[in-house]
Order: sequence, then C-alpha cells, then structure tokens
Amino acid sequence: MEIALQEARAAAARGEVPVGAVVTDAAGQVLARAGNEVEARRDPSAHAELLALRAAAAATGDKLLPQATLWVTLEPCAMCAQATAFFRVKRLVFGAYDPKGGGVEHGPRIFSQPTCHHVPEVVGGVREGEAAALLREFFAGLR
Amino acid sequence: MEIALQEARAAAARGEVPVGAVVTDAAGQVLARAGNEVEARRDPSAHAELLALRAAAAATGDKLLPQATLWVTLEPCAMCAQATAFFRVKRLVFGAYDPKGGGVEHGPRIFSQPTCHHVPEVVGGVREGEAAALLREFFAGLR
Repeated sequence: MEIALQEARAAAARGEVPVGAVVTDAAGQVLARAGNEVEARRDPSAHAELLALRAAAAATGDKLLPQATLWVTLEPCAMCAQATAFFRVKRLVFGAYDPKGGGVEHGPRIFSQPTCHHVPEVVGGVREGEAAALLREFFAGLR
Repeated sequence: MEIALQEARAAAARGEVPVGAVVTDAAGQVLARAGNEVEARRDPSAHAELLALRAAAAATGDKLLPQATLWVTLEPCAMCAQATAFFRVKRLVFGAYDPKGGGVEHGPRIFSQPTCHHVPEVVGGVREGEAAALLREFFAGLR
C-alpha cells in the first residue's frame, strides 16, 4: 500500500485526483503500478485501478489475474470494481472509504450483486487516514 | 445502430463476443466505432463501449461527451454503464437486454443509484432481435 500511496502522491503532483493502485502477484511482487491519469489522458475512465489491472495483465501475458492482489488508496468506483471482477482478481485491498463514489461498500455494491460472476476477498480501510488526507488536501487546494 | 451491429458481426468474425458500439455527436455523425476486443487485446476491460467512448473523446479533443449518443448492441455492464456516466454521455441506446451481465436494467442498475452523478437518457431494445440473435449464434457455435 506504500507504493499505491506514492502513486497517489505523484498523481496529486500532476494535478490529478490523488488515487494510486498497485497489482501484486501471489509472491507479493509488483506486477504493475499506476496513478490516476484522467487529466493527462483526457479520459474519464483512466482510473488508477483500470490502468494497473490492464498493465498487470500485459505484464503476465495472461488475460486474467486469479492470483493477484489489487491495492488501491480509495474504494473503487463501480467501473473499477466491475473490472476487478472481470480480471478475476483474488484480493482487493483499499484505503479510504468513498461514500459518494464508491461501488464496493457503497452505491451499487458490485460484489454483492447476484449477477457478479467473481467476488474477490475485500479488505477496506488499510492506511485509510493517509489516503483520505491526500484527497482532502487535494480538494482543499482546489478551492 | 446498423453500424454497431456491423461492429458486432466483425467482432464475431474475430472470435470475440459479438458486441458493437458507436458514438455519435449532436448531428448524428459518427465520432467513433468499436467492437469487443477482449481476446485480441487480452484485456477483459476492452469492451466495445469503453473503446468507443475513449476514441470518441480523443476524436473531439474533449474529455466529456455531453452531446453524444452511445449506441451499443447489448445492455452495458456495470463497468461500461459507470464509464458512460463518467463521460457524461447524453443518451444511451442499446439493443438486447442482458439479464445476466447488464448493469443498466439489471443487477446494479447503475443509473438508478443515488450516488450516480450523471444519468443519460436510456432507450433499450432497439433492433434487439438482431443483436440477441448474433449473441445466440456465437455462443451456440462455441458449444
């Protein structure tokens, strides 16, 4: 999660909403890391999670990531949660909870839907305070 | 929708699940078109809708698509429905309903969530029979 937080800080420095993500393999080795690139790519779907998942699959040469853990500093939105299911990620660990935009513990609760074909293990609130502080500082700076 | 169906047929010919998507502007001109590329890209998030939305934004040079219509042969999943909201698409027109994987009229019903910031106009069932037949034939061929 330290690497995900580094990615979030780097995103903030680029003027992006500070969210970072890392994908690790069964041995805990980093397969891919990414920060939010919505502004840089002018692409509202360029969330850190999607970028990291895509890069991790490319790194392994495999379409699915059934041994992988996705670490992300913020509770994923519905788009990224559904993508996490599509990539068959084993475990999702996230930092801050997101009552407004989250899709795991809030809103559509993607993994609780009976139509969700794959449900990862989910651990929320890991280094929550640091992840939330980054977001708070970023949005305070915009005002 | 005819172009989206062409994209779906082309996807089937490549061995992809036959789903096609088109993004048009306010004047009805095609901004982008795409078929499913999950197998070709080895990327479970390479759904036709996400590819077409991203390409349409790149084509306009704008991050958001508030005048656009997304035409897709199948009810979008939760990932693509949420992306449709992020891109601020004005109107979503889809073909076949998808009780198993859909995220608009089924499952998480993304646009009905109080946390969904943008809700497009939605029209479902347009050339539904043709879109559904393509999918049925594709999956029958796999058996």
